Amino acid sequence: MTEENDGANSPKETEDNNDVGHQVGLSDDFIREIAQLIDDNYTDRVQELCREMPAPDAAELIVKLDGGRRHKLVEMLEDELHPETFSYFDRDLLNDLLEHMSGKSIAAIVNELDSDDAIGLVTRLDEERQSNIIRHLNRNLRAAVEEGLTFPEASAGRMMQREFVAVPQFWTVGKTVDYLRAAATTLPDRFYNIFIVDPMHRFVGTVPLSNVLCAQRTVKIDTLTEEEHVTVPVTMDQEQVAMLFRRKDLLSAAVVDGDDQLIGVITVDDVVDVIQEEAGEDLLKMGGVSNPDFFSPPVSTVKARFWWLFINLGTAFIDTFVISFFTGTIQKIVVLASLMPVVASMGGNAGTQTLAVVVRAIATKDLTSANTWRTVLKEFLVGSINGILFGIVMIIGVTIWYHNWKLGGIMAAAMIINLAAAGLSGTLIPLALHKTGFDPANSATVFLTTVTDVVGFVAFLGLAAWLMT
Amino acid sequence: MTEENDGANSPKETEDNNDVGHQVGLSDDFIREIAQLIDDNYTDRVQELCREMPAPDAAELIVKLDGGRRHKLVEMLEDELHPETFSYFDRDLLNDLLEHMSGKSIAAIVNELDSDDAIGLVTRLDEERQSNIIRHLNRNLRAAVEEGLTFPEASAGRMMQREFVAVPQFWTVGKTVDYLRAAATTLPDRFYNIFIVDPMHRFVGTVPLSNVLCAQRTVKIDTLTEEEHVTVPVTMDQEQVAMLFRRKDLLSAAVVDGDDQLIGVITVDDVVDVIQEEAGEDLLKMGGVSNPDFFSPPVSTVKARFWWLFINLGTAFIDTFVISFFTGTIQKIVVLASLMPVVASMGGNAGTQTLAVVVRAIATKDLTSANTWRTVLKEFLVGSINGILFGIVMIIGVTIWYHNWKLGGIMAAAMIINLAAAGLSGTLIPLALHKTGFDPANSATVFLTTVTDVVGFVAFLGLAAWLMT
Repeated sequence: MTEENDGANSPKETEDNNDVGHQVGLSDDFIREIAQLIDDNYTDRVQELCREMPAPDAAELIVKLDGGRRHKLVEMLEDELHPETFSYFDRDLLNDLLEHMSGKSIAAIVNELDSDDAIGLVTRLDEERQSNIIRHLNRNLRAAVEEGLTFPEASAGRMMQREFVAVPQFWTVGKTVDYLRAAATTLPDRFYNIFIVDPMHRFVGTVPLSNVLCAQRTVKIDTLTEEEHVTVPVTMDQEQVAMLFRRKDLLSAAVVDGDDQLIGVITVDDVVDVIQEEAGEDLLKMGGVSNPDFFSPPVSTVKARFWWLFINLGTAFIDTFVISFFTGTIQKIVVLASLMPVVASMGGNAGTQTLAVVVRAIATKDLTSANTWRTVLKEFLVGSINGILFGIVMIIGVTIWYHNWKLGGIMAAAMIINLAAAGLSGTLIPLALHKTGFDPANSATVFLTTVTDVVGFVAFLGLAAWLMT
Repeated sequence: MTEENDGANSPKETEDNNDVGHQVGLSDDFIREIAQLIDDNYTDRVQELCREMPAPDAAELIVKLDGGRRHKLVEMLEDELHPETFSYFDRDLLNDLLEHMSGKSIAAIVNELDSDDAIGLVTRLDEERQSNIIRHLNRNLRAAVEEGLTFPEASAGRMMQREFVAVPQFWTVGKTVDYLRAAATTLPDRFYNIFIVDPMHRFVGTVPLSNVLCAQRTVKIDTLTEEEHVTVPVTMDQEQVAMLFRRKDLLSAAVVDGDDQLIGVITVDDVVDVIQEEAGEDLLKMGGVSNPDFFSPPVSTVKARFWWLFINLGTAFIDTFVISFFTGTIQKIVVLASLMPVVASMGGNAGTQTLAVVVRAIATKDLTSANTWRTVLKEFLVGSINGILFGIVMIIGVTIWYHNWKLGGIMAAAMIINLAAAGLSGTLIPLALHKTGFDPANSATVFLTTVTDVVGFVAFLGLAAWLMT
């Protein structure tokens, strides 16, 4: 009777039910098998293996195949694919896969989705295609999608579902339960809360289903609401929504318009996606990748990364410019050429540590104006202290190695100056970007390394030019 | 009747109820006000403002104050603080705050928590304190905590709650609802699913509450289970758990032991925390910060960051070593000294782009053995193509600027070699670390920049030495 499956869905996986090998998602062997079957044109076998595959698994399979096989698989599966599968793809891949489909067949897919997924999918379509597809949608969904697109991108209005359960505040538990049983077929497949509204359809409160289930039939439904009345304004940014869910441990929240009317619901599974994406995007941005391009073809990846590297090339030539003032000194004391990257690179690394902490703290709202100056001061202190520590390491190391205490002292001084500067710029740069409305994760690294390179080279070579020649 | 609050809790915030200023969490003004009141020793006013403050808000307030005020606030609030407040602090801060409390008063706090929060808090306590506090816990919680600690760190066993609702498979909806109403006071405050078990208490299926509410009383409960029977083995790693929740859009999942017995439940709010933390940690690790230290005092931050910088110092001296072979050439053609950072830095940046994408793809399981070689090949291609593009830029730029096409050609060649190497090492290094059980986010950057620096300097200076002298 007990059917153990544990999130494993491919036929390959159910064989292996141990804890250790426990795997979420498709096994690599399964993906390889499908790839082979696609190459061999075994359409029947592919359909058989992939039929009834849950949407996330089908999406995983498609993205993990290479370009040619992807298209072939989608063709082979045709109507067998769960429509939700398409809501998992990013912009590039989605448009690539839908390229050869007619507006009508795409609309047929979108028609099967919940309103929030439908809006998400339509948003990611190329613009020229959007209107064509919206025209082919069912009347209700079409209205929902059109309205959804009027809300700002990445706002609650785009995330919310229009399907929810709301009851008047004067109902009892018994009446509510009777209503739910009678209306079962017209309700959303799954819901987590019942919302209470007043006669004007304004939000009154949220009742968790467990409260309804544990209450006697005669109890008035509005006595079961959560203590705290949390609502999400329809224009709230998705990051704010995510933070709200996290802080309040919400499962779903009512979305209200300016008049406090209940117009939708956001559920925690959409919020989980937002959290996962936003945190991952910051990592990519810090690394100089503004759009996730793991599944993009090489050509568009080259294009996307080229400009970031181009900017970096510009800043690298600032180094060249700075160093060129000291070529005379370098020619006389050529060991400076081999030592100068050390000071610059230590500054860059120390600055990157600070930057990572500050960018993360800005994203999690741990860093706000209440503790800005404390943070700047702390990072300046940390940089300076580490500068002094590495200064000592330098004096000892360079004196032993090059038998030149003066050179050691100069490196030490340059190290202290550069690590202090790194602490300062590692905080001030992202804070300034954030204050002026830019994304600190996106561009802070360029500015930072420019500062630490220039300060490092100027301090080291400048002191050397002054004291050693 | 409609009480709008929207997640704002501090007295400062309810005044401002517009969409635009909508803020999750405490306002900075409120935090500053409290800081001032603490300095002025207005204990009564502080207690008044902070009484009944939800745990996440109280936790935010405490972490955002500086060290001295934190302790003072905790003292002032004493028993007014919601016990859950303490479950929001990281290891350092928690032990710091509890330093002056007796084992008994700490145990009193832990006694108020759910078993999962209790285990989480006890885990973060300094070891010498742990056993002392466990001794003072209530019998049931003590057993739960002691058992919880036997599961691997960061496993499902540590995340799960022992409080859940399970009913036998032969019950009807009517019987289940009657049971819930009768047992209301002994059930968990909030639950999202009802689990069905067989007579041996083995897991049979999960029933969403909305299914129960919409079903007639005569329906058998085990006909309402989710189609897919998802369970979490108690030893499953928390990252895997998070991925499972994300893929299946779960709200809560049954945790089972090796015999498939239902022993606990994991809820989505804990999973959200895991997702948020794991994604953020990768960003910090890539930046060379192994433990989030935003709220740590400067001295422990210096200590934590010193060793990463120390390793970087070692790799920086590899650069010095490499360059020192070419000092003769540099002395003859000193312009090389000012141009050599360009090739190295472009390699470092291109490699970091690749690295960020690959580390992220490993974390999200987008990159598996099924597409490893495709990824390596793609990144090598992307690196090479960008290398060629920047090679062209170099030839043109350097020839114009320095009137030296030979130097331009050498830079171009070095750029192509280094960017191709960056693409390769940006994928192979994190993959190798991951395969051998290391954390790719943690140490890949050091290895990568060492490779791109060495290749960059050797290619550029080597070619120059060969062709220009």
